[in-house]
Amino acid sequence: MRLSPPAQLRLSQASNFDLYYGGAEANVAASLSILGMDTQFITAVPENAIGSSAINRMRSYGVATTVLSQGSRLGIYYFEAGASERPGKVIYDRSGSAFSEIKKGMIDWESIFENADWFHWSGITAALSLDLAEVCEEALLVASGMGLCISADLNYRPSLWNYGKKAAEIMPNLVQYCDVLLGGIEDSEISLDIRLSPSDTNEIIFNKWMRAFPKLKTIVSTARFNANASSNGISAVLWDGKEMFESKSYNISHIVDRIGAGDAFMAGIIYGILQWQDDSQTVLEFATAASCLKHSILGDINLATVEEVVALMGGASGSRVVR
Amino acid sequence: MRLSPPAQLRLSQASNFDLYYGGAEANVAASLSILGMDTQFITAVPENAIGSSAINRMRSYGVATTVLSQGSRLGIYYFEAGASERPGKVIYDRSGSAFSEIKKGMIDWESIFENADWFHWSGITAALSLDLAEVCEEALLVASGMGLCISADLNYRPSLWNYGKKAAEIMPNLVQYCDVLLGGIEDSEISLDIRLSPSDTNEIIFNKWMRAFPKLKTIVSTARFNANASSNGISAVLWDGKEMFESKSYNISHIVDRIGAGDAFMAGIIYGILQWQDDSQTVLEFATAASCLKHSILGDINLATVEEVVALMGGASGSRVVR
Amino acid sequence: MRLSPPAQLRLSQASNFDLYYGGAEANVAASLSILGMDTQFITAVPENAIGSSAINRMRSYGVATTVLSQGSRLGIYYFEAGASERPGKVIYDRSGSAFSEIKKGMIDWESIFENADWFHWSGITAALSLDLAEVCEEALLVASGMGLCISADLNYRPSLWNYGKKAAEIMPNLVQYCDVLLGGIEDSEISLDIRLSPSDTNEIIFNKWMRAFPKLKTIVSTARFNANASSNGISAVLWDGKEMFESKSYNISHIVDRIGAGDAFMAGIIYGILQWQDDSQTVLEFATAASCLKHSILGDINLATVEEVVALMGGASGSRVVR
Amino acid sequence: MRLSPPAQLRLSQASNFDLYYGGAEANVAASLSILGMDTQFITAVPENAIGSSAINRMRSYGVATTVLSQGSRLGIYYFEAGASERPGKVIYDRSGSAFSEIKKGMIDWESIFENADWFHWSGITAALSLDLAEVCEEALLVASGMGLCISADLNYRPSLWNYGKKAAEIMPNLVQYCDVLLGGIEDSEISLDIRLSPSDTNEIIFNKWMRAFPKLKTIVSTARFNANASSNGISAVLWDGKEMFESKSYNISHIVDRIGAGDAFMAGIIYGILQWQDDSQTVLEFATAASCLKHSILGDINLATVEEVVALMGGASGSRVVR
Amino acid sequence: MRLSPPAQLRLSQASNFDLYYGGAEANVAASLSILGMDTQFITAVPENAIGSSAINRMRSYGVATTVLSQGSRLGIYYFEAGASERPGKVIYDRSGSAFSEIKKGMIDWESIFENADWFHWSGITAALSLDLAEVCEEALLVASGMGLCISADLNYRPSLWNYGKKAAEIMPNLVQYCDVLLGGIEDSEISLDIRLSPSDTNEIIFNKWMRAFPKLKTIVSTARFNANASSNGISAVLWDGKEMFESKSYNISHIVDRIGAGDAFMAGIIYGILQWQDDSQTVLEFATAASCLKHSILGDINLATVEEVVALMGGASGSRVVR
Amino acid sequence: MRLSPPAQLRLSQASNFDLYYGGAEANVAASLSILGMDTQFITAVPENAIGSSAINRMRSYGVATTVLSQGSRLGIYYFEAGASERPGKVIYDRSGSAFSEIKKGMIDWESIFENADWFHWSGITAALSLDLAEVCEEALLVASGMGLCISADLNYRPSLWNYGKKAAEIMPNLVQYCDVLLGGIEDSEISLDIRLSPSDTNEIIFNKWMRAFPKLKTIVSTARFNANASSNGISAVLWDGKEMFESKSYNISHIVDRIGAGDAFMAGIIYGILQWQDDSQTVLEFATAASCLKHSILGDINLATVEEVVALMGGASGSRVVR
Repeated sequence: MRLSPPAQLRLSQASNFDLYYGGAEANVAASLSILGMDTQFITAVPENAIGSSAINRMRSYGVATTVLSQGSRLGIYYFEAGASERPGKVIYDRSGSAFSEIKKGMIDWESIFENADWFHWSGITAALSLDLAEVCEEALLVASGMGLCISADLNYRPSLWNYGKKAAEIMPNLVQYCDVLLGGIEDSEISLDIRLSPSDTNEIIFNKWMRAFPKLKTIVSTARFNANASSNGISAVLWDGKEMFESKSYNISHIVDRIGAGDAFMAGIIYGILQWQDDSQTVLEFATAASCLKHSILGDINLATVEEVVALMGGASGSRVVR
Repeated sequence: MRLSPPAQLRLSQASNFDLYYGGAEANVAASLSILGMDTQFITAVPENAIGSSAINRMRSYGVATTVLSQGSRLGIYYFEAGASERPGKVIYDRSGSAFSEIKKGMIDWESIFENADWFHWSGITAALSLDLAEVCEEALLVASGMGLCISADLNYRPSLWNYGKKAAEIMPNLVQYCDVLLGGIEDSEISLDIRLSPSDTNEIIFNKWMRAFPKLKTIVSTARFNANASSNGISAVLWDGKEMFESKSYNISHIVDRIGAGDAFMAGIIYGILQWQDDSQTVLEFATAASCLKHSILGDINLATVEEVVALMGGASGSRVVR
Repeated sequence: MRLSPPAQLRLSQASNFDLYYGGAEANVAASLSILGMDTQFITAVPENAIGSSAINRMRSYGVATTVLSQGSRLGIYYFEAGASERPGKVIYDRSGSAFSEIKKGMIDWESIFENADWFHWSGITAALSLDLAEVCEEALLVASGMGLCISADLNYRPSLWNYGKKAAEIMPNLVQYCDVLLGGIEDSEISLDIRLSPSDTNEIIFNKWMRAFPKLKTIVSTARFNANASSNGISAVLWDGKEMFESKSYNISHIVDRIGAGDAFMAGIIYGILQWQDDSQTVLEFATAASCLKHSILGDINLATVEEVVALMGGASGSRVVR
Repeated sequence: MRLSPPAQLRLSQASNFDLYYGGAEANVAASLSILGMDTQFITAVPENAIGSSAINRMRSYGVATTVLSQGSRLGIYYFEAGASERPGKVIYDRSGSAFSEIKKGMIDWESIFENADWFHWSGITAALSLDLAEVCEEALLVASGMGLCISADLNYRPSLWNYGKKAAEIMPNLVQYCDVLLGGIEDSEISLDIRLSPSDTNEIIFNKWMRAFPKLKTIVSTARFNANASSNGISAVLWDGKEMFESKSYNISHIVDRIGAGDAFMAGIIYGILQWQDDSQTVLEFATAASCLKHSILGDINLATVEEVVALMGGASGSRVVR
Repeated sequence: MRLSPPAQLRLSQASNFDLYYGGAEANVAASLSILGMDTQFITAVPENAIGSSAINRMRSYGVATTVLSQGSRLGIYYFEAGASERPGKVIYDRSGSAFSEIKKGMIDWESIFENADWFHWSGITAALSLDLAEVCEEALLVASGMGLCISADLNYRPSLWNYGKKAAEIMPNLVQYCDVLLGGIEDSEISLDIRLSPSDTNEIIFNKWMRAFPKLKTIVSTARFNANASSNGISAVLWDGKEMFESKSYNISHIVDRIGAGDAFMAGIIYGILQWQDDSQTVLEFATAASCLKHSILGDINLATVEEVVALMGGASGSRVVR
Repeated sequence: MRLSPPAQLRLSQASNFDLYYGGAEANVAASLSILGMDTQFITAVPENAIGSSAINRMRSYGVATTVLSQGSRLGIYYFEAGASERPGKVIYDRSGSAFSEIKKGMIDWESIFENADWFHWSGITAALSLDLAEVCEEALLVASGMGLCISADLNYRPSLWNYGKKAAEIMPNLVQYCDVLLGGIEDSEISLDIRLSPSDTNEIIFNKWMRAFPKLKTIVSTARFNANASSNGISAVLWDGKEMFESKSYNISHIVDRIGAGDAFMAGIIYGILQWQDDSQTVLEFATAASCLKHSILGDINLATVEEVVALMGGASGSRVVR
């Protein structure tokens, strides 16, 4: 659950909070559902009106849910949107959440994966507790055994890794099961425990990753530039082991909400691979355009439809009112 | 009636809608009234609180109203404002509106035009029903007979032309009565049934129009450039049959609401001609500045005053707080 | 879709509208879903953001949906809540809705009813168009043939019967398929075409109904008393052909929103019969308590849970904060 | 201009204020206009956006306005609605208002009254400055000379009489011109300078008034009982010099906003006399029902229509939703 | 921090939450400060914008604060206001709060109590952790040694006692230091470990308490009656060891917010004893009137002034607008 | 008190106003308090809920207050934020404010300045009344005698100088006591009565000022460029009598609220001098960065913390979300 001051107020000025539900994997699932995919989301919420509201919201996007009713609270984060030179701000209040109390053995992965083609997880989950990191591994073993395509978003958040392990001690063991990986070069040492030399190009780095994790088939990475809190450019690259594809750049002149832009990109990659397989340029352009549109949408979840993403890929600038 | 999600929410996120009243001709009338002109607006609304609220709003701007109380509903459109690369979106819900049920003979044009100097109508009205197109003609005949100056905004909206006629079959018959016309070159074939060749310049095109409609004395046209949904440049031209006047360009860096910018321009042209007659450059600059200011104002109606428009024409950049 | 002024404003004062989704059958389905039943809702919505938002809302309550994408608009009603001596006010704006354009043959009732136990419909549907009345009959024939329990809410709304037939000409043909009926004695002549004599007691009246519609097993009816727009008492009766059960009375001192109270009652009856079959007193008390709680909830849909309804049935007065 | 905290917040909790325009005479004029009468309102506002907004609001109700553009501010009052045992609270911030700077000779009463039948004024105006009291007299002389029917609401507000005169020194001179007077027995000494003895009945008191002001034909007075800030009963009496008419009592169980209830009553009396002349019982019942409905409406102005007032007079309790 | 849906929405309907700061002791401190007393509040908040906002709010009421900056979160509770038969609902989300991590030795009670006359604490603090119960004892020992008058509110909340001790095991040890105690007869066994026999009158019970805790000089207790979620009566008693004082009853017909009514009462008792010492009837009437007014005020904190409380004690009904 | 329409509405569109408290000196005091300084603010407010709310707001920022309770109103200004080419607009409604009624002798400056190091005042105070100009002089004499460092912001507002004196007649007498002065070259003749020749550079001008006011040690001045109402660049200079320091430029692409940017700069200068004395470049960079951040914050008061200002000085662009 995200709590944000309305309009452009700071947290300290708020007399009320706007309420959004989201989370890394939830955002990907909801976005894929809005793009027309069948999705399922596995989580835990407390047995109260706050927990059920979060689930209702996921259902409203058409996401099927498998929910453990447990624990006493839903994780919260406070988000203060930035403006111009003032950066956005996240205050996490996630400790003790129902989700963080999921343990191995609680979830029947076999039946969940029964008709599934794809499993996606995020480094945020592995950051929350050792139990959750083990649950990730448990799921990855089953998914991998059942032949699902597996993707991960490294999503490194230093303030969340508090249970005594570093990301670099945990993540490599989990990334080895993945076919598709979203990360940036700054993740190399921090999340993947792979040393870089200063002269390494993107290609060299991603090749190192692929050697370390031979199951990897696709690495994707996004970049921001010319940025302040209200505007920035974005672009992305995709490495398929042989070729580096580069997306169009978008200059997002008026950011509405950048939270979830990475999840929107990830959902775009998953959708793209399922639709266009080997057409990596199209996959990448779709994901980048999806992420671009997310910046214009309030909340964590990308509400853009396939039609809207495709229009932007095709060159629409946003300047004509659609009637 | 316009229904819009508050702040920057999408339609699907709204738990409430902001409410604005507007419509092509209503916007022109309200804008002229705010500029200090005596105006009268002719329409039909249902006999309920929604209908009377629309009329109350027009009265609050000082517009005199002639209202048929009939039918069961007020036409609605839903408007989702765009942002950056995400375009704005209009969903029309106008079918069966009280306005669309006006028929010939219902309105006493002679008495309405008694003390009037000017009659303005829009292509949107002619698009709604064959009856309304006939009502337009009925009014145009009377207005023309009584010597009023007549203006039209072609305002082509493909999704509204649903009654079996094309714009090009209806509009030329109505445009022949006009002295002043607002349109773009894309209207030439679609609305005016006038073929163009690829090499035609604006001057050639507008000359073709004037030959086709010899009563026309002034043609005006606006342009947007460097646009996404949040910012664009605007400029305009005026053709008086002999000379092409070009306005200053404005770079609108932060669009608040672009709906009604054309109506604001039209009102500016009418105001300008009534004030400055043959000083076409001043007429055009006034209208362009008025349209520019409309982009900074929420709702369909341009609330800018003469003083504000003139200040912008005179070079004020908007950067100084007026105290 | 309901549009209501916020707080206690009148329609003519609104500068924005609160947005609720509802409708007679939708309310029953959502309420049953919240009570824990598997439900499915059949409707038609236009293929735009307004239509899909309505569906998303139903999904958020856990209702499965079968949706025809057609037509150009979602039916609207404006609701102005009353206060004290000022009555609430509904302005219907439903003509031309996607729902009203459903015709026989569009819906595959056999597959919809495949695993269903119960079919519920409302007199509002039959009021909207002759086509819809025929669709009702089509569904009733299939449901009846497949052995579903069938319930109806007579829900007579004079302002909706506009297609040239009277309720009394249409409804009896549809009511003959029903096992459970919600109506008041004022419906007898208007909806059921059954004459009453002034001395007829409730028992006599309901017996006449049962003789006219021999499939009927249960008739339920609600009453309001000591009422103004802000407070009233409610109670209900249930006639099983032999005995007249009377519910507790509730004095609702501060009505929040009375729209949908009948639908909440209907859902309570369905839930009750499925839970407690022949224990008619419990069925009736559950439904009455459910309806009572609806009056305290904004929007058309009863959000009360089984636990909350049972607590009220058991004598909780609402005075203790549940912690 | 009224500034009120939203919902049920206290002034000290507000981070925003709801904005209503009103004032004793403005409320009467707007209410009469909504009841279908032609009305005109004379005032002064500063030449800025706040002043013109107040005028726009009056125009939206259909009130014609004669406005002096002068001064630097619009009078304000802050209103905190009460609840149960906590009384409502008004903080006046009216000193130095444009209205209070009107002086004799500024207004051309002859032309204003040209086609008028009735002139209404309130004791609040006379309380604001000696100049305004003189303007009242000026207007009364003209109105009286031109044969208008004249009404006054004594409206005694101790905190407003700050210019060195007591109400009893000013008001009698003005009341002498009136045909219709709204006041309570507590006004007798304070406003009218007429001594009472403890045993005086209403009839005796009103007879004393009529003797003191022989032009008076009708005295009306309202009463509240069983009251806290959220609910009260109301009733009213009318004395025509011969007979004391008593209205029905209304028990307003949920007050929405009681400000302007007296003005709504006054407008009802004026409307009633113009409609039903000598049928004093009907006049009184109409005014009392109008005042009752005002309690259910936010803002200073009674938005009830003739149809709504007549329905309440006729016994409608507010309990049925009007569809 | 309290998060509440706006207006009368349920938690599951909220798209935003109103934000109030409060807590048992904070409410008492703020209320006393508003009544004109010098107060100091001791707490712990996380070092972020949420924590500092809570402190800013206390400062705005004029409360001096001693704050430990520690921990990662501020305790939250969600509050859904009830209506009529639907009870209000509190969902606690307090585990892991900065406050619950205060331990013995962290606070320098000697310097805090240096110029203080009174120390107040609540059973909610003792319920949160064994550490906090020990901190209470630590403070009580110092306060008692320094001769402060000590008061406690038993405030039993079953859902908060989760650390393995029962209230009856902890509270008696702390209550022994108190001079003034607020509790109800249901607390006798649960909080104070004192058995009752069914025939015990209030006097007998309170005498048992005084025998068990000989330092007690004053016991106060409040009662609600004729209650649903929107209205109830209240009254209170005070036992001074010899005489049972009974307050006036108030019928609160329209409850705005009942949270904090007990804290408002407690603040009234403290204020009353400091003002009127032995005049127990006045003390009790002041506290009861203060608590009555709290029901009309949104948020946890009683914003009523001495003037307002005294007016209610003196018989003002809330029916007259204070101008 | 500032009243502003919400979102981007114009004043004439508002149905409610957002409420902010501020004022030139109040903004400086609050900003310094948020930066961690002990501050005290001297003012006068009426003895009502509006006055005490203003004081509560100052207290919430940690500002100590010395308050005269007097007069009948709090000064108001209406602020309509601009957008793109539409300038922001201020309507002052300050006449007759409690503050403007402060007179010499009412304030005990000796005790106020007892432990103070710095006194700051603004030209707005001197503009409001001759009495206030004299109060300024009274304070300056005491402050100067007690050895406080004194700063002033010339803050010339032509529409406020209405009491018959020009700024140039009043200000020089007050500026002579100052050590630090904020002003622009346009102030030279208007506020300081110092003639300029067209060829004067900034250095020459500021030297003239220092010769005229020999106590001056530091002159600071800010500039805007490339500006419309939604975006501009800012930079500043500091003259210490010998050297002209120039700050970094910031391009503020999305202005949230520019009111108070000068006060934020002034607070930054005071904070900077107290922290870094002779390191004029650091002082200036801190103040400029503080002012830059103010543009991103709603309301009059700069809520930026030292940590945030220092991060911006250090090169943070606002583009990274702080987690």
